[in-house]
Order: sequence, then structure tokens, then C-alpha cells
Amino acid sequence: MDDKTATIIFQPSGRRGEVPTGISVIEASRLLGADIEALCGEKKVCGKCKVRIEEGFFEKYGLESKPSHVSPWHEEEDKFINSEDRQAGFRLGCITKVLGDLLIFVPEESRAGKQVVSKAARDIYIEHNPAVTLYYLEVDKPTFEDPTGDYERIGAQLEKQYGLKDLRIDIQTLRQLPAALRKGDWKVTVSVWMDQEVIRVRPGKFEGSYGMAIDIGTTTVAAYFCDLGTMEVIDTVSLMNPQCKYGEDVMSRITYHMMNADGLEKMSDDIVAALNSLIDQAIEGTHPPKQKVKKKKGEKDAEQWIEVPEKGKIYRRLAREDIEDITICGNTAMHHILLKLDPEHVGMAPFPPVIHHSLDIKARDLGIHINPSSYIFVLPNEAGFVGADNVGVLIAEEPYNKGEIQLIIDIGTNGELVLGNKQKLISSSCATGPALEGAQLSYGMRAAPGAMERIKIDPETHEVDYKVIGKDAWRQYSEPKEMNAKGICGSGILDLLAELYSAGIITKSGLFNKKGQKSDRFRKNPDTGQNEFVLAWAEETSIKKDIVITQKDVRQIQLAKGALYAGCKLMIHRMGVKEVDKVKIAGAFGTHVDREKALIMGLFPDCEIEKIVSVGNAAGDGCRAALLNREKRAEANWVSRNVEYIELTVEENFQQEFMRAMQLPHMTDKFPHLEGLVPAEILHQK
Amino acid sequence: MDDKTATIIFQPSGRRGEVPTGISVIEASRLLGADIEALCGEKKVCGKCKVRIEEGFFEKYGLESKPSHVSPWHEEEDKFINSEDRQAGFRLGCITKVLGDLLIFVPEESRAGKQVVSKAARDIYIEHNPAVTLYYLEVDKPTFEDPTGDYERIGAQLEKQYGLKDLRIDIQTLRQLPAALRKGDWKVTVSVWMDQEVIRVRPGKFEGSYGMAIDIGTTTVAAYFCDLGTMEVIDTVSLMNPQCKYGEDVMSRITYHMMNADGLEKMSDDIVAALNSLIDQAIEGTHPPKQKVKKKKGEKDAEQWIEVPEKGKIYRRLAREDIEDITICGNTAMHHILLKLDPEHVGMAPFPPVIHHSLDIKARDLGIHINPSSYIFVLPNEAGFVGADNVGVLIAEEPYNKGEIQLIIDIGTNGELVLGNKQKLISSSCATGPALEGAQLSYGMRAAPGAMERIKIDPETHEVDYKVIGKDAWRQYSEPKEMNAKGICGSGILDLLAELYSAGIITKSGLFNKKGQKSDRFRKNPDTGQNEFVLAWAEETSIKKDIVITQKDVRQIQLAKGALYAGCKLMIHRMGVKEVDKVKIAGAFGTHVDREKALIMGLFPDCEIEKIVSVGNAAGDGCRAALLNREKRAEANWVSRNVEYIELTVEENFQQEFMRAMQLPHMTDKFPHLEGLVPAEILHQK
Repeated sequence: MDDKTATIIFQPSGRRGEVPTGISVIEASRLLGADIEALCGEKKVCGKCKVRIEEGFFEKYGLESKPSHVSPWHEEEDKFINSEDRQAGFRLGCITKVLGDLLIFVPEESRAGKQVVSKAARDIYIEHNPAVTLYYLEVDKPTFEDPTGDYERIGAQLEKQYGLKDLRIDIQTLRQLPAALRKGDWKVTVSVWMDQEVIRVRPGKFEGSYGMAIDIGTTTVAAYFCDLGTMEVIDTVSLMNPQCKYGEDVMSRITYHMMNADGLEKMSDDIVAALNSLIDQAIEGTHPPKQKVKKKKGEKDAEQWIEVPEKGKIYRRLAREDIEDITICGNTAMHHILLKLDPEHVGMAPFPPVIHHSLDIKARDLGIHINPSSYIFVLPNEAGFVGADNVGVLIAEEPYNKGEIQLIIDIGTNGELVLGNKQKLISSSCATGPALEGAQLSYGMRAAPGAMERIKIDPETHEVDYKVIGKDAWRQYSEPKEMNAKGICGSGILDLLAELYSAGIITKSGLFNKKGQKSDRFRKNPDTGQNEFVLAWAEETSIKKDIVITQKDVRQIQLAKGALYAGCKLMIHRMGVKEVDKVKIAGAFGTHVDREKALIMGLFPDCEIEKIVSVGNAAGDGCRAALLNREKRAEANWVSRNVEYIELTVEENFQQEFMRAMQLPHMTDKFPHLEGLVPAEILHQK
Repeated sequence: MDDKTATIIFQPSGRRGEVPTGISVIEASRLLGADIEALCGEKKVCGKCKVRIEEGFFEKYGLESKPSHVSPWHEEEDKFINSEDRQAGFRLGCITKVLGDLLIFVPEESRAGKQVVSKAARDIYIEHNPAVTLYYLEVDKPTFEDPTGDYERIGAQLEKQYGLKDLRIDIQTLRQLPAALRKGDWKVTVSVWMDQEVIRVRPGKFEGSYGMAIDIGTTTVAAYFCDLGTMEVIDTVSLMNPQCKYGEDVMSRITYHMMNADGLEKMSDDIVAALNSLIDQAIEGTHPPKQKVKKKKGEKDAEQWIEVPEKGKIYRRLAREDIEDITICGNTAMHHILLKLDPEHVGMAPFPPVIHHSLDIKARDLGIHINPSSYIFVLPNEAGFVGADNVGVLIAEEPYNKGEIQLIIDIGTNGELVLGNKQKLISSSCATGPALEGAQLSYGMRAAPGAMERIKIDPETHEVDYKVIGKDAWRQYSEPKEMNAKGICGSGILDLLAELYSAGIITKSGLFNKKGQKSDRFRKNPDTGQNEFVLAWAEETSIKKDIVITQKDVRQIQLAKGALYAGCKLMIHRMGVKEVDKVKIAGAFGTHVDREKALIMGLFPDCEIEKIVSVGNAAGDGCRAALLNREKRAEANWVSRNVEYIELTVEENFQQEFMRAMQLPHMTDKFPHLEGLVPAEILHQK
């Protein structure tokens, strides 16, 4: 090791900084807060820390050739990286040393900071009626007396045995038919879509058919991998939306399209590639993991990888073609970008989408690699800013079947609101932005290991206690260097704001209190001139920097919560009701949110705490319902056209409500919940 | 010119032979009977004689590099061949001299021997009800009060104005929608397929929509290019089926597939390329021809081509995308190969096709370059050997709507027979092979310029008189060297056989008469040892060789006519009728056939000559009917499953009937028509 330093940039996180040369890529990632998975504790045996040394160069350093800024290939790497991947620049992070400036891509599967998936499937009731159904058929061979063609032969049997009439067959499936019939000795299993079209034929008898329900979020893409026959959720897979590189939120994606002739094409290709990679993830999980075997002397030079099944585990060993149905939801912009539909007008008043209605599109027409004759069902959109993901929430929660007035809040990168009951449903969206999810803040991050998820501030000393994801104990019970904090995630943010306010560190208007600060945690940043408050000192972090919340961060959060509150309030007013019977919070945010803190902060209208429930990943659940029950598809179309969309920003009182709602806590006439939680002198300060 | 010779092979005709070096490619083509178009009489001004000097080499000569066996590029060629085509090896045949061995490809458009297209559209009654219909719409722009999406906006208007409900839209069309609506200021023309799916949207008001009805024959692919609105046949285009290189008939194509793993793929790709080239032909015809302009001094180096419109002619100037519908028919093997459906089983007893039913396939799924959202309608098949082309004949002729018993004979590369009336229809096929169309004979050829189409033989002298296509006068009124005969086509063949028989040159068993030959035209070929009869002496031909008919040729024709006659006879027997009310002959053969000669030769059962009618290209007409009237598509499916297919070869009497029918003329109990036409001693010889 020498005392030189090198500039390292990690992609896709964008984390960058100077590190001493001679350290390993994993060590560098830790220093810069772009943690790489190292299951084995860097013992070089798990192979999980694969990274790709990018072929790019840093323009400012003028590196023009493939960087030799890493240590040479090590034979241990041979065990985990095949020659093709080696060619592509893959290395093991624990072995490879930094010798100079580098641009390093950390593939999703190597990221230690994998989002804590709160998108596990909830137990919702779904009637079993999948769009794709299997039928087993035995037919007679053709003879001179009956030389009927192959397709009519199975068609007659499908009608006779199962009452299916007037089916059509996809040309790609038709191509498989003659061989399948003969290979199966005139016994075949056919997959039929919506009782309308034969989309697959396999020789012999099969029972498994599989599907995926995919929720394309602005930030995260998550999918349920399901057995269409048993409705079992086999796996939950997710990855980052690769479009994040074009911008964090919906508007910046739309802008990217408008500024770049090939922008839509690129973003669409990226998400399609991501969907294919999700599918691969799901399929891979049905096979035993593979390990490379050492070559014996005299053996041929070919690489050999053998399966290492887990003891007692039964593997389904599926192929991509075994996925026969997919349902997709997402907000209107994600919907449009996936389908290469111009999203420009969705971003401009009056925000008309290109289409509301659901679509059935051949997988091959979208470049999605599953059974090629299969259809992708894309859920319908309600409006420009209330997309197919919200329709997913609705068909999962079915407020239109209930008498009680429900307010359903789906906080993703933006907030979507639905209010009503079986009489009437109205919806709207509010520009919460991603602040409530931890994005756009100086030290915001996704709910991943190292994220501060709970925060307490002592009102007397202003000392901070917190808990990070991936570690059981609170800070006060730990050594500082054990914490390895990295940032603040969505659930930590609400805690934080409530605590800052309750401790008198910020005022109800959101400004840092000039007087009454009780620790050196409050300071003015000499570089930016902004006031800030230190949540964790550098020694407690894995990024070796103080984690702070700045005045600008507080403002971001206020804007988000103000938009949400004002939205809810105006909706309730518009609906003509006094109060709601239930508040349902969907999305990862709902799972983590502390209902009491949310009320303190005035995130949504006053109601009894018992009325607030989290409904988890309701969008994904609705998408799954549409996968497993075709009736839900019709229901989705019905509801998408029967929810009245309200454009809040043009409502008369919007600005006024919004400004009021930005205050902490929101001042209502009756706000009994806050008595006792917030000191009276703070609560009632003018 | 020196006295050396070179071996030349012309593709795709396969004509080959030695020619003196120094002559032009056109001259060589004439010597070898592979005539190249030379509209201007080799004055180097028409540019029609473009050929491609192939990059290949003759293995037996070991030429391994691009041949320099042609004269250098001449500046006159610049006028007609652009730099891209020059790169690809194109030359003008009138200018380019042969300097050594060559493999020369003559593109379809340069072939003088273009088939005399008898596939012109007949006037059949078609009710106007095309599958693709245009609708002009004016809609309101979106507002905050009505921010409905683009698609629902036009959907509502389609319902309100035209009563169209529950339409879907193709994803590729949906992608055009937002721009079209805005570019057209909320006025658009949409194309709707079968009242079910929106397949095109254009800004503003349009009236034209176009389609093609394509008949894929084993030898020729021919299409009607139609205006879907007015039903006008704008153009008739045709070219050779490029699969001919894999074999002349259906069975050899099937065999090629079975012997080559990529055989089906290759043949399918070839026919798809041919269809695209047909489409280009049709589209090109709607634009004025182009001519290259000479560069002026000082002008940029770019080539310039300008349009030279014919005076007074109005050009539609269409693009491929303007073709919005296509219907296709063909025999079952052509059908299967086009669609990449395994044709193996169609060629093996009991000959089941992969599918009977018609198919609607997206043009893009077949790689056909028209409006990408459009469907290709593929007509249904009756049976393995009675394909979609025969269904085309049926829906054009509608025997199922008549009381009279019709026998419909479609002679293409094989013979297809349908018999019956509104009570019952039966069909069968007979292996006539292509002999009746002129193929498989030593000097057989398609009905193209130079083909002997009428032949007379003087019974006294055995002198031969004949007429060739492309020349008005008979040989006896012309100088021998004016005839430029090249071979015999289908219509000449029947003449020939009847004349040979009537003149006593061959016996009723088809053998050359050993005694009674009256000229030196009858001879034994010293090379093959076969008897043959000279029809045209070398000096009368363009191929500079005697055109003869050999014993083997006569046998081929006998086999064909025997199969056809036996087939008809067995069908009539099976139907339980004594005679038929009408004999309809479809196909190019029907147009050219001399009904009397056909009866003499026993091509089909005895009937009064008035009952025999030619119905021209009935398959193409049926295909066109399906293009212009969607009801015909349903009718096609109905009839394809309601014609009873009879496998003749397994009928009890088939062999016996077939053997009897091979004789000339077929001996029936009553055959009054032949009295007087054929000398009694010949007619009644044992």
C-alpha cells in the first residue's frame, strides 16, 4: 500500500470519492457508502461480490483505454466468474485491489443495500380463475377415414371435453403443434388464454403453469412469481428501475424523453431489459445454485459448473417459456414509457394519457422473453397522474364494494389518493415527490441496511438515539463504530420530523429554532451557509461523514406532507363528508409508518388512530389478483372509468390549504391527539 | 473477338452452355435460351437488361475470386445503374462482354421471358364489404373538465358516429395516436379491421385504403393490387416463386425441408422476400418512373434521379404502409411453408395439414412490410392436397349455391378437382405434375415469349406448323429465323399430343409409331437412344438447337392426363351421377386450352363442348373476393370444412382407371366427338 489516492465512482448509486490506493474494491465501496454484498465476510468463498470494471474512462482524467487501475486477475476469481463474464470486465470485489481511478458498476445482485423488500405478498382473497388455463387432451391419430388437420383435431377435443369453442391459435404455437402431437403420441397439454386462444402446446401431460404480477415503480420494480394453478406465490423478486439514471421522478423521465429524440426508446428498452432480468431472477430461483468445479489434470479445457442443491429442497427447474402470463401495473408515465407511448402529454395540463383501457399485448411485441405466444396484460390507467398502479390498489381493496367511506393513500414517488365507497369514488394525485421515501434529502436513502429507520431526540439534551436497518440494538446500547449508519429512509423521516419538532429544534413553520438549541449538533454548515442538525457523527457511519438534516431537507419534507394533507382535505370537502371511516395506507411507506407520528406531523386528516391501517403493497396485490382471476381485469377497466379524477391544483382553495398544511403540526380546530405528545408551549406557539 | 469459348450459367433459369467469348451478355443469353429483356433493341438506351454478375465461382473451374471475366465498366452504364447496384455486381447485358466463365443472375424484371400474365382480374360479382374500413373523426381536445385519454376520445366518437363498440387497438397504432391527433388538430382518419381493432391512424382526412390478394403458386406468385374503397384492381403483379430453386413441385419442396434442418426457414424466408418484392412492385407502379440526370460541371458528386411522369397520368404515390390488408391463398404445402408450419405430414399418408382454418396473422409476425398493425388473412385449407387455393376457386365459383352439378378442375402444378352442387361437394387431387404446364418436358417452358402455343402437324407430310407467343404469324408464313422458338408451353402441349396422335406419329398407347413415319423429323437421338420428333429446327429457334418431343416427354403428358381423367371419372362415380352439367377449368391452363383438343386427348370426361368453360384465375378471384368482402372469409371456412375430401389413390378402381386413362384417346363406349377428328384406323386400332 502506498499513500496515493484514487477517485472511484460506483454505479448505479453514483457514490463517488477519493480512496487510498491498494485497498480492495469492497473496502472502497464501504468508504463511499456503496456497499457491496460480502456474505462470506471477504473470505473469498461466496462469490457474491461480483462487480464490473466499466470500460468507460473518466474524462477529466483522460483515461482512454480499458483501465489497468486494478490488480491482476487472481485464480480464485476463476471459481465464480466464467470466461464470458471475465471478458465483460467482471471481478470479485474482495480480491480486486484499487490501483487508480475507476468507474465500477455494482450489479443489482451484488448490492448489499438491497432494498428490504416489504413487497411480500399479503393474504388477500382471490378467486381462482386465471386467464391462462391448461387442458390435457388425448386425440386419435389421423387416418385415411379421418385425415383432419392437427389443429382441428385438438380443437374438436377441446370442445367435446371442455366445451371450448371457436378458439384461435397463435402462429408461433401452431408451429409447435405437429411435433408436439407426434412426440406426445397424440397426447398433449395445451394452454388456453381467456378461453379464446391456444398459446402453448406441450407433448404429454403437464400440470404447472406460471405467471408474474409486476409493479413498475418509478424507483423499484417488484414482481410476484406465481403458480397459476395453485395461486402460490413462489417468489418475490425486485430490482431498481434502471430508468433512475435518467432522473429520480416521473417528471424528469418525461423531460428526458422531450429533450432526447431516442429518450423514449432508451428508457423503454431499459425497463424491458429490467423485466427480462426480473424474469431470469425468478427462473433462476427454481434451479439449484451452481458452483464451478476445479479442472482435473488432463481434462479438457472447458469450464465445468455443477449444481449444488440444498438438501431436501425440491426445485421446479423452470424455463422462461414456462411463464405463460404476466400482468403489469405502474403509474401512467411508467406505463407509457414501457409501451413506448409518448408520455409528453401526461406531463402537461390537462394531463390526458394516451389510453386508459387495459391492453393485451403479445410478449414478443414488447420484447419480453417468456412463452412467445403469451400476452402481457397491462392494467388500465385512471388518469394522467393516477395510473394503473392505483387501479391495482383499488381492485385489491375494492372500496367500491363497501358502504364505509375509505380514504386510500398510496405513497410512492408521488401520492395518489382515492376516496369514497360503493356510491362514488373520487381520486386525485398530489406531488409529494419522493421526499417521504427518503429520496431528494441530503442523506436520504432507500429502506436498506444502514438506513436510520427509527429516531428519538431527547428534549432535554437534544441527544439523538436511533436504530438502523440490519442491526437490532439502538445506538445508546452500542458502540458508535458498530452502527454503520448510511442515511435516513422513509420511516425514519417521519420520526425525525416529529422529534425535531417535539424537542423544539424546529418551529411549526419548519425553520430551525434560533434560540433554545441545546447541543453542538445544531450548526451552520460553513460550506453551504445552511443551518443543519447532526443525526449521526462520522464515527457512527459507514460513510465516514456526519449524517445531517438540513433546512432544505426539512422544507422538502414539509412540501411533501403539506401536499398530501391538503389533497386529503380537499378530497373530503369535495366528497361532501365530514370524516372518513377508514384510512388505508398502501405501499412500503404504509408498512413502515408510525401512525401516531404521522398524525402528529399532519400527514393526513385527523382521525382515530384505530381507523388507520396499512395495506402493504396493494398495487402489487391487485396486479396479482388480475393475474390469478380474469374477472379482476374487467373489474379494473370498470373501476378505472368510474373513479372521478379531480385535478387538485385547479381547486379553488388548493394554494391556501397547501400553505397551511405545510406547518407542523397542522392547526385544526380540534386536535386532541397532540395534547401530551407535543409540549404545550410548542403546540400553541404562534 | 477471339475464338475461345466460355461456360455461362444463367440463374434462375439454370440455362447453361458454351458461348464464344467477346459476345455481349444479351447475345449469350439468346444463344442459351435465357432471354434478357432488351426493349430498345440493344441501343443501350432502355436500361432494361440489367443483370448481376454473381460473386460465386464455378467450382469445377476453380475460380475463387470475383470474376474479371467481363469487360470493364462502361460510362453508359452509369445512366441506369446506381453506385449501390454497381457495388452489388449489376451490369447492363447489352454493353457487358463475356470474357470468361460466368455465373449470371437475371433479375425477374430483366427477364424477357416474363410469363404472359393470364391472371388478369375477371369481372366477378363481389359485394363491397372489406375487412378494413376507414373512418374519419373529429374530436374535442382534452380540457380540465374532460381530460379523457386519446384512445378513449376517438373510441367514444367511433361509437357515437359509427356505432362501433368495444374496439381494441394494436400497440403499434396506439404509438402513432397522440402525434396523429395533435398533428391533425384533433381530426384523424382511422382504419378499423373487422369492426374489431384499430390498425392505423392518420392525421386529417384520407380516402384511399389498399390491399392485395396474393395467390402463391408452386411456380408463380401473382397478386391483385386493389383499392379497398372502390374495389378497383389497380395493378396485377407477379413473379416466380423463388422456392423453385429447391425443386419444381410440391413434393420436392417438402423433401428439401426434410433433408435440411434449415430448409423450412430458408424456403419461408424466400417466399416472404418474394411477397415483399411483389409489394414493392405494386407500390412502385403508383409512382412515376425515375431517370438519372447527368451531373453538370461543378455540381456535387451525388447521384440525382428525377421523376419522369407519363403525360396526363395521375399517380397515387403510395407507400408500403398504405397497404392495409392482404389475403393469401396457395396449396397446402405453399401455405405451410410460408407460415413455417412443418409440411412433412402433408406429404405423407394420410396427409393431414397442420391446420384447415383460416388465420389472421399480424403482417409483422410474418415479416411482411406493409402497415405493421395490419393482419394477413390466410385462406383455409380443405385437405393436404386440396389447399387454400382451391378454397379460393370455390368461393369465386360458389358451386354450393347452385343446383347444377359442376366439375371444377384447377390445373396448376397439380390437379385439384371439385364436384357437386348445393346438396354436396366432394374434392380430390390428382398428381398431374407440372407436365401439362410445360414443365418437366425436354423443351417445356412457361407461357412466355418464344413458347410454341399452337401446333399443327400435316397428316400427309408430317410437316409441322406452329405459332409462338409474342409473334402473330404461323411458321408457314414466316422466315424460319423469324420464329425464335424457345420451347413448348402448356397450351401447345395439348395441341401437340392431339396432332401427333391424329397424324399417326404416335399410337394410342403413346409410343412412337414404328411404321408410317413420313419425315426425318422422327429420329433416334444418338446420345440418349430415345425416339424423338423434331418440332422446330435449330434455325427456327432462339436457342440454336432443335426443339424436340421425346418418348419420355409423351409419357409424362400421358401420366398427367391419365391422372386427371381417372380422377374425374372416379369422382363422378363416387358422386353417383351419370354426367355433369358443367366443366369449369380454372388456372392459366384453362385460359389457353383448346376444349376440343382436350376432349380428343381425354383430359376430362366426355361432355358436350358447350359445357366446358374457362374460369381463368379463379383462385386469385376468390382471394380477391375475400379481400373485398369479409363475409367471403367466413364462407371460405365453412366450405373448407364442408367439402368431402376423397383420397383417390386408395379408391378401389384407381389403378385400373388410371392405366386405361393413359391411352390416347381414352376409349369410352360412346365417343362421338372424336369421329372425324381422328382417322378411323387410328381411333379404332387395338
